Amino acid sequence: PSLLWTDNPLHCLSDLFGCGSVAQVTTTRNQKGEYLSINLGFALGVTLGVYVSRGVSGAHLNPAVSLSLCALGRHSWFKLPFYIFFQLLGAFLIWHCCYSLLLFVCCAEAIQSYSGGELTVSGPNATAGIFCTFPDEYLSLLGGFIDQVIGTAALLLCILALGDSGQGSIPEGVQPVLVGAVVMVIGVSMGSNSGYALNPARDFGPRLFTYIAGWGVDVFTAGGGWWWVPLVAPCVGALLGTLVYELMIEVHHDPGLKHRRPVRR
Amino acid sequence: PSLLWTDNPLHCLSDLFGCGSVAQVTTTRNQKGEYLSINLGFALGVTLGVYVSRGVSGAHLNPAVSLSLCALGRHSWFKLPFYIFFQLLGAFLIWHCCYSLLLFVCCAEAIQSYSGGELTVSGPNATAGIFCTFPDEYLSLLGGFIDQVIGTAALLLCILALGDSGQGSIPEGVQPVLVGAVVMVIGVSMGSNSGYALNPARDFGPRLFTYIAGWGVDVFTAGGGWWWVPLVAPCVGALLGTLVYELMIEVHHDPGLKHRRPVRR
Amino acid sequence: PSLLWTDNPLHCLSDLFGCGSVAQVTTTRNQKGEYLSINLGFALGVTLGVYVSRGVSGAHLNPAVSLSLCALGRHSWFKLPFYIFFQLLGAFLIWHCCYSLLLFVCCAEAIQSYSGGELTVSGPNATAGIFCTFPDEYLSLLGGFIDQVIGTAALLLCILALGDSGQGSIPEGVQPVLVGAVVMVIGVSMGSNSGYALNPARDFGPRLFTYIAGWGVDVFTAGGGWWWVPLVAPCVGALLGTLVYELMIEVHHDPGLKHRRPVRR
Amino acid sequence: PSLLWTDNPLHCLSDLFGCGSVAQVTTTRNQKGEYLSINLGFALGVTLGVYVSRGVSGAHLNPAVSLSLCALGRHSWFKLPFYIFFQLLGAFLIWHCCYSLLLFVCCAEAIQSYSGGELTVSGPNATAGIFCTFPDEYLSLLGGFIDQVIGTAALLLCILALGDSGQGSIPEGVQPVLVGAVVMVIGVSMGSNSGYALNPARDFGPRLFTYIAGWGVDVFTAGGGWWWVPLVAPCVGALLGTLVYELMIEVHHDPGLKHRRPVRR
Repeated sequence: PSLLWTDNPLHCLSDLFGCGSVAQVTTTRNQKGEYLSINLGFALGVTLGVYVSRGVSGAHLNPAVSLSLCALGRHSWFKLPFYIFFQLLGAFLIWHCCYSLLLFVCCAEAIQSYSGGELTVSGPNATAGIFCTFPDEYLSLLGGFIDQVIGTAALLLCILALGDSGQGSIPEGVQPVLVGAVVMVIGVSMGSNSGYALNPARDFGPRLFTYIAGWGVDVFTAGGGWWWVPLVAPCVGALLGTLVYELMIEVHHDPGLKHRRPVRR
Repeated sequence: PSLLWTDNPLHCLSDLFGCGSVAQVTTTRNQKGEYLSINLGFALGVTLGVYVSRGVSGAHLNPAVSLSLCALGRHSWFKLPFYIFFQLLGAFLIWHCCYSLLLFVCCAEAIQSYSGGELTVSGPNATAGIFCTFPDEYLSLLGGFIDQVIGTAALLLCILALGDSGQGSIPEGVQPVLVGAVVMVIGVSMGSNSGYALNPARDFGPRLFTYIAGWGVDVFTAGGGWWWVPLVAPCVGALLGTLVYELMIEVHHDPGLKHRRPVRR
Repeated sequence: PSLLWTDNPLHCLSDLFGCGSVAQVTTTRNQKGEYLSINLGFALGVTLGVYVSRGVSGAHLNPAVSLSLCALGRHSWFKLPFYIFFQLLGAFLIWHCCYSLLLFVCCAEAIQSYSGGELTVSGPNATAGIFCTFPDEYLSLLGGFIDQVIGTAALLLCILALGDSGQGSIPEGVQPVLVGAVVMVIGVSMGSNSGYALNPARDFGPRLFTYIAGWGVDVFTAGGGWWWVPLVAPCVGALLGTLVYELMIEVHHDPGLKHRRPVRR
Repeated sequence: PSLLWTDNPLHCLSDLFGCGSVAQVTTTRNQKGEYLSINLGFALGVTLGVYVSRGVSGAHLNPAVSLSLCALGRHSWFKLPFYIFFQLLGAFLIWHCCYSLLLFVCCAEAIQSYSGGELTVSGPNATAGIFCTFPDEYLSLLGGFIDQVIGTAALLLCILALGDSGQGSIPEGVQPVLVGAVVMVIGVSMGSNSGYALNPARDFGPRLFTYIAGWGVDVFTAGGGWWWVPLVAPCVGALLGTLVYELMIEVHHDPGLKHRRPVRR
């Protein structure tokens, strides 16, 4: 039971680093960072989020990943609803909001100075994008949905390969760095359309925060009602990526090896 | 036999990351990325392509490398034609085209918005370079051929050294990261002439896709008929690099050690 | 006793790299580096500072970290005052000043050329920021204090997780790289407000140097008397981070495991 | 004897990557790279130069480092003159010239297009800096000498620590990456004054090449006769760094441990 309430707070630390890097690049107008800094912020943020929490919870930072591990039988279906439920309730409504608040406290004066005090979702001094994702102007909802499905599928393919002992061993303790590298490469290659949320928990919690903290209902209406896409598409993408991995790679593993692999990751 | 049809699809994942980073930098006009992002996209793309497929196929992403390993006796000559044939047929005509299609789906609206709907090979809004390589304006075909020979030879020298147990061990599971580092350094040091294809499969498949998808015959005629250079020069370069490595390094290894090394990589 | 006088000089090497990167970016007006170079300079500087000194002193580069390790019982309270005292006296008054002098010698002509010979703390050709931190114009003292508390707390959470065997092992010799990654991510995500000092020793020593070397009393009066914030806030933040880590993570570890962990880090 | 003629050619590969990255950034006028690309080119170049040659020669890429290892007794004094002599003769007059020629072949058309065909040492289209180092305009010979002494001393301190088993172990095969990180951090923090040659062999060989290849006597007269500084100062700096490391770190190691350390690195 302790797990249910305690594992989330610290691995949401990745929010502070990831969203913090967006805040820094945005409010300094690229003077103290650039798009690569944002990619590094999210990548190293995820790496350190895993290091900080893996000993307690197995570092399930992303409900979409938990869902896929469950579908793979590496995680008991019995526990899944609890994970999802408490990740959703815990992460969405409590922890991600808390971290957004923490970040907001940290950069309140920078946001004030940058935006002139107006918290807007779009326009030249928009700041909502610090906390949650919005699509680029040219992007349709369908295009954004496909973008998030493909991005999360690629994420899962790589994460499953990194954790698959049938692929050859990786030095213990180095995996979190490689998971960060996956987030890095997705950021440099698939981040421009809609900001690579890839994680329903990481996007909706901060969005709720911005709604409460003064950005208003625009955070939900912007981008043609974009808010639900990073909530649904990553789950679809994660299951798709898992299915592809199973069909392309797992079926060729020696069945004997498969049984030697521990059930939980 | 399963190998022949299954190993390729996932390691071509590196295309999605590498070419995706070019798409991102191009269509955002350097607002969400820069040349270093492209270098990182290809480097981490190759690293993750190896992690995803090494357990099934030995991660032969590059026919030019397979050719060289064969020449080294680390790979049976008997199997080579199958590898080459299925890499060519599979990778060229099927998988690389598929990944190009996937990437095109992913960034179709970005390309539309950037190019105004015209798919061109050269000019200010050219987008063919997202998928396959073209030489810079100043470059002759001979200069480009030499550039690709030297680049691929350097790639092979480094890959052979990283896989050579006579050079001292490298922690298992870290090699794919170092292979990515080789692609990174070639990108920052030899990428400006003609875009460091280094791999016949990775260049020709996507080129075929662009031909079909609407860029037209220009993808073959551009650069004075550049298309065949990244198909032929990397093979020449790979064999040259292998020959140099054998003459400079391998001959000095203790013959006893050599026999202890497993025949296949 | 040899420890007291010898461990500090070399791990302050991180100053030379970190502050050197600020000097390079500042004096070349971003021509030979950018903000990311500064992040890399401090990150790799800390990594190498640990490698250079860990065999002799356990690499206690930061009095705020020593304080926290002591609070955790990983470091004897008995030794703490000696560490703090000699880190303060040694690091502040002697070593950090020495390294600042060394850096000043190294880039004296660059500073001369950049500033026209006037050593100023603010304005377009300010150079005091090479050595110690100053808040951005929009930042209040309270905002800066909070910024440093949160930044150092995040630093400690990550460092404690990396050194906590209850979280799973990390290959010996790789930890210093990960500590550098923590400094990197804090730099890209929380560096714009006030330059992420995070370490009382690293900030006050060089500030004293600039005071003596010709920048004058402005280094203490600038930013509304900013000088004491990076001296006090990191200590508060380090203790806060340690407390949070204990409450969130450590309490859930198997008590048996805890005893197997060696007392000193 | 085979060692004398064969170890150098391949580890000079680092020239191709390092100088190649300068060529790329210079000739594309920062369009396909930036100062960080150059830092990465030299860092990864050194890393891969070590991987490629460590099995045959122990990867003595830098005569200044060989000199220091000798002074430390880790390398026999008897062999030193041979190393130096053949590194000097081999590296200077043959291999580094060869690699410069190779690079020149590789980017001849880029240099032609950039410079309009005039091979100049200074001015807006100068290209000699691709191959060897020149001081910035503001720098005196004395300032540059000090800069190179401090830079090489820092290099040695870090390399000695990374190779010192008394400092704690580092996973076998990871050391070359950390040596590259040292070159990286020196590049971002001490590269703006005079281009961080740090290595007499790497600077003089290519300078000789440029003299022969058409840049003329300017490569020796430029910067007030700068050419001899990167030849002499790194040797002084390497010995200074070694001396400092011995006095600050080695003397505190357990003498028993010292004897267990193998004599050659």
